[in-house]
Amino acid sequence: MRHAGFIAFPNVTQLDLTGPLQVLSRLPGWKTHVVASSLEPVPTDCGFALVPTQTFESCPPLDLVCVPGGFGVDDALCDGVTVPFLERAGARAQHATSVCTGAFLLGAAGLLRGRRATTHWAYREALSRVGAVPVDARVVRDGPILTGGGVTAGIDFGLALAAELAGREVAERIQLALEYDPAPPFHAGRPEQAPEAVRAEVRATFGRRRAVFEARLAAALEALGPRG
Amino acid sequence: MRHAGFIAFPNVTQLDLTGPLQVLSRLPGWKTHVVASSLEPVPTDCGFALVPTQTFESCPPLDLVCVPGGFGVDDALCDGVTVPFLERAGARAQHATSVCTGAFLLGAAGLLRGRRATTHWAYREALSRVGAVPVDARVVRDGPILTGGGVTAGIDFGLALAAELAGREVAERIQLALEYDPAPPFHAGRPEQAPEAVRAEVRATFGRRRAVFEARLAAALEALGPRG
Repeated sequence: MRHAGFIAFPNVTQLDLTGPLQVLSRLPGWKTHVVASSLEPVPTDCGFALVPTQTFESCPPLDLVCVPGGFGVDDALCDGVTVPFLERAGARAQHATSVCTGAFLLGAAGLLRGRRATTHWAYREALSRVGAVPVDARVVRDGPILTGGGVTAGIDFGLALAAELAGREVAERIQLALEYDPAPPFHAGRPEQAPEAVRAEVRATFGRRRAVFEARLAAALEALGPRG
Repeated sequence: MRHAGFIAFPNVTQLDLTGPLQVLSRLPGWKTHVVASSLEPVPTDCGFALVPTQTFESCPPLDLVCVPGGFGVDDALCDGVTVPFLERAGARAQHATSVCTGAFLLGAAGLLRGRRATTHWAYREALSRVGAVPVDARVVRDGPILTGGGVTAGIDFGLALAAELAGREVAERIQLALEYDPAPPFHAGRPEQAPEAVRAEVRATFGRRRAVFEARLAAALEALGPRG
């Protein structure tokens, strides 16, 4: 039995975590865990809390670690436990992975240096801050590192990962069981597709939160420096 | 402020709930709730539990109710509290909705009679058992009833609903923020797309669980009968 750990922290974007977990929890031969600093319920960005199944201390050695994103990444970068756990787990795991802005937690643990990687479109250029090479793609593989784009990319990412871990036919079975033949009612999922007014509003929303993210990322990278 | 309630029950398919909740929790003027028989953590099919925010008793009057699916529907059909809650909530709400096999809980509450509706592909024909007209589509609207197909259809369903409740531009903003420009790595999300071996295996998996579902649905419909 191999072990996959999904990291949880307050204000995680729920779908970042559930998208790939829904896929990988159906993978034969693998056990999935939701891992956090304690077993206390973790509030998500969807208004409800989820209950971790393991703590950073109790967690079995992970073959795969997956880090979701969300606005909660800002605080998780500097909580003193999440990044140190990822340094330890990432050094051991065969696969260190992220969805959305979870990439910056991997990056703060030093795991993206020199790697091609992706994240949410609004943060992509910032990947260079953690030494990564930003790539405009929904799923990016570079050696042991697999990164997914923003939020919903986690489902595509999960299926790509399932195929790598258990073969294409297993991934296709999961895809069919999840009826994953997406049909978005609108064509606005990427900045270059969305109407100008929509793009401007969403950019402004992310922009208002950017200063805090930048400050926390700088602090996390300063802490990493001497070990890097 | 309007209120949207997402129903939780043991062994719910996590993504059925999180897909539309991730979309609708970002809708201006709406408050979302996760509603269950008690505030005890509810185990999901992904190995972790989620903490409801309201009980069937404490829940404010709902303008919208959304019922996710999963294998846990079998037991929820006959737990004595979920269907009665849906009868009450469905009679009041402007919108009674479901994702995946959650449609059968709506149906057991008498809400799908004479309505065009959809559900997970492997269960679609069974919609006639609850008096609905099965439709092969990812999202189906019939008056106050909006139903989505299997699991991942909940995201398309959520965006369609967001547009109806708050306008297309708001839905597009949410789509862009969630980077919803899906790119499945394989072409196997519907039975007619999947390779024969994949289709046969997934059909067999659902087939093994079908007898229990049929028995519980029959029992639930018998209970509904006199009130219907």
